[in-house]
Amino acid sequence: MSILIRNVFLEGQNVDVLIRGNRFARIAPDLQEQQAEQILDGTNMAILPSFFNCHTHAAMTLLRGYAEDMELHTWLENHIWPLEGQLGEEDVYTGSKLACLEMIKSGTTFFNDMYWHYPGTARAVKEMGLRAALSSVFIDFNDPATADMRWEECQELFQSYRNYSERIIFALGPHAVYSVSRSSLERARDFAQKHRLMIHIHLSETQAEVDQARKSLGKTPTQYLNDLGLLGPNLCACHGIWLSREDMDLIARSGTPLIHNPTSNMKLCSGQFPYPELSGRGIEVGLGTDGCSSNNNLDMLEEMKFASLSCKARYNDPTIFSAGEAFEAATRAGARIFGLEAGHIREGMLADCILVDLTHPQLVPDYNLIANMVYSAPGDCVNTTICDGRILMLDRHIPGEEEIISQARETAQKLINSRAN
Amino acid sequence: MSILIRNVFLEGQNVDVLIRGNRFARIAPDLQEQQAEQILDGTNMAILPSFFNCHTHAAMTLLRGYAEDMELHTWLENHIWPLEGQLGEEDVYTGSKLACLEMIKSGTTFFNDMYWHYPGTARAVKEMGLRAALSSVFIDFNDPATADMRWEECQELFQSYRNYSERIIFALGPHAVYSVSRSSLERARDFAQKHRLMIHIHLSETQAEVDQARKSLGKTPTQYLNDLGLLGPNLCACHGIWLSREDMDLIARSGTPLIHNPTSNMKLCSGQFPYPELSGRGIEVGLGTDGCSSNNNLDMLEEMKFASLSCKARYNDPTIFSAGEAFEAATRAGARIFGLEAGHIREGMLADCILVDLTHPQLVPDYNLIANMVYSAPGDCVNTTICDGRILMLDRHIPGEEEIISQARETAQKLINSRAN
Repeated sequence: MSILIRNVFLEGQNVDVLIRGNRFARIAPDLQEQQAEQILDGTNMAILPSFFNCHTHAAMTLLRGYAEDMELHTWLENHIWPLEGQLGEEDVYTGSKLACLEMIKSGTTFFNDMYWHYPGTARAVKEMGLRAALSSVFIDFNDPATADMRWEECQELFQSYRNYSERIIFALGPHAVYSVSRSSLERARDFAQKHRLMIHIHLSETQAEVDQARKSLGKTPTQYLNDLGLLGPNLCACHGIWLSREDMDLIARSGTPLIHNPTSNMKLCSGQFPYPELSGRGIEVGLGTDGCSSNNNLDMLEEMKFASLSCKARYNDPTIFSAGEAFEAATRAGARIFGLEAGHIREGMLADCILVDLTHPQLVPDYNLIANMVYSAPGDCVNTTICDGRILMLDRHIPGEEEIISQARETAQKLINSRAN
Repeated sequence: MSILIRNVFLEGQNVDVLIRGNRFARIAPDLQEQQAEQILDGTNMAILPSFFNCHTHAAMTLLRGYAEDMELHTWLENHIWPLEGQLGEEDVYTGSKLACLEMIKSGTTFFNDMYWHYPGTARAVKEMGLRAALSSVFIDFNDPATADMRWEECQELFQSYRNYSERIIFALGPHAVYSVSRSSLERARDFAQKHRLMIHIHLSETQAEVDQARKSLGKTPTQYLNDLGLLGPNLCACHGIWLSREDMDLIARSGTPLIHNPTSNMKLCSGQFPYPELSGRGIEVGLGTDGCSSNNNLDMLEEMKFASLSCKARYNDPTIFSAGEAFEAATRAGARIFGLEAGHIREGMLADCILVDLTHPQLVPDYNLIANMVYSAPGDCVNTTICDGRILMLDRHIPGEEEIISQARETAQKLINSRAN
């Protein structure tokens, strides 16, 4: 497969971009002699890296708007968990397809997911054409029997995940320090080391989590993970809000990346991500939307704006978390964290990119494209989404969209009905 | 002119909606026998009130992205003001048309604007079909000659504004307490009283503004306006961040509405709007985007989300500023503040409304339409925008869009070139 994008705006000039297989093959001002199976007109469009959403629970898109404006515990225990408990693999497949649809429409081609019924999400990724790091939620609450059962499931998934798609990265998903036993964390550490896997975990999302760790473990969750040897570049630690200075130093020294989820943190009142202290230590910061029951969407454009503005406001400094930093966190940082040669429009890199409509009213005028993307543009400025050298959306059209929507509506209705009974 | 919208979702059921002239004439489940000049199919759409953007500087859309991530004074004095100083009436017309285009595309049909070159904005409103309250910026910095000159201009505008459109509400625009002399504020008060006009003002946007007032006037800006007899339902006071308890009591007692601009406040680090204390006193709160150089868009859907989430986060309470309250502030509150019989889809009300595409991925599932609108939906969920009984956008198409975009791009280029010289 080859694609030639003609006359597209890239970093200050108009170029032609040739994609061969799943990589950018040539980028130059004039490639008219080149042959390609598909030719796109890039006039009045910019080519940019697509977004890397580094923390999601994709299938929770099915719960969007289900329970709102509540205290955390009421919300979780009386609403979210009971509905979640009813989801089966088919529901997760349906919810994940809806999530993929929404992500492609707003320019995201990679997501790092943790959820139940792994095969449901894996099938959705396979069909929809995105890239994803998928982990099955691992929770044992210190119960050895549960731990063994979950561990067996996890190993089975590891044997079979390659059957779905080469675009899927298998990752381990120990949920958090408070929900996973020490022995399971150690097992995850060893298994990840042996098979060179990423580990996806929630870290210091709430103050209560840290207080509890100090009480029961005598240390912060970060110190605990450090003592267990889990910190490092392969630990994708999400949230990272309630961190002590020592925690930040440990994270920096170990090269552990952190994933910032500003919208979810604001909506759930989790706290403020200490971005300046973290970026000042050279910690790699990726960006994620979290699940749709706490955001309530998967729109990385909006997430960039929330990241930057919430940080400026909280630190009372309009110069921090600049547009450029937000764009970096939403694109290249994610690619680096997951070891993907992507995030740059450059020959040899993976062809994961978007074409952005420069005549969209919210991108006019165009003094500063990146500032426009971060502070102004909505998802529908994305005209075309390409992942792994394949066009997933062209002219805002995604094949099968109507069916995905009607299936998701049906599933939601079924969930509501079963709750009523 | 009459429009019949068939089979559209309204508050729990599908109805037909008949618009005659500029009002909703009939709303009932079955109006098939009715005749209408234009018939719209509302299948899979919801009809909702359109948005009322209660604080804008529309023409500043031309400055979108021009200067970013800077300290307030550097930003204003070295970048925004010099560029603004070059704008003439034609530029303001062009920038306001771009603003109107963006607003219609994201479902806004009313804006309350304060800017220079009034006729430029008035012409844009006339052509684009929105409703607007327009005020000319009034700044005299205590200089009597400037005051007289501006006052004369203002009176001339008052004589002529009706020539533009009946959808324009004339308002007075004394910029702020620190930029307008006492005698000019009194003149505005008397003129507004005589002609029953709204007054549009910036109030307590920054801590510096309040400190300065305490120093030079011996009181807060709110106390000062109260002493001058300016507080009241016809004073549209924008920002209202740095308010003492006494200020809030004065505002509540006088029935003065406040306009909240959360995105601008976060981006410029102005401070946190004390929503719970204000709403607890029964103060009417409208929502505004402010100008595009501090937001950087005019998207009221995004503004609702920022309003709610920034408040939840700052007050550490996920139950406050609910989706319903945000939607109220973005729609009906604005209509009430400006005395417009709008904001409800109800027989006899002004036909200002939007049709929202319920198959948009970010509106699926549909457990709670208002929560979806506030917390999830992007601007392009708006399929059709109607103002004053006239269709401004149909199927996301606005006549003349391409020309507006190319004109705005040309004007921006001209501004950049003249700055370079």
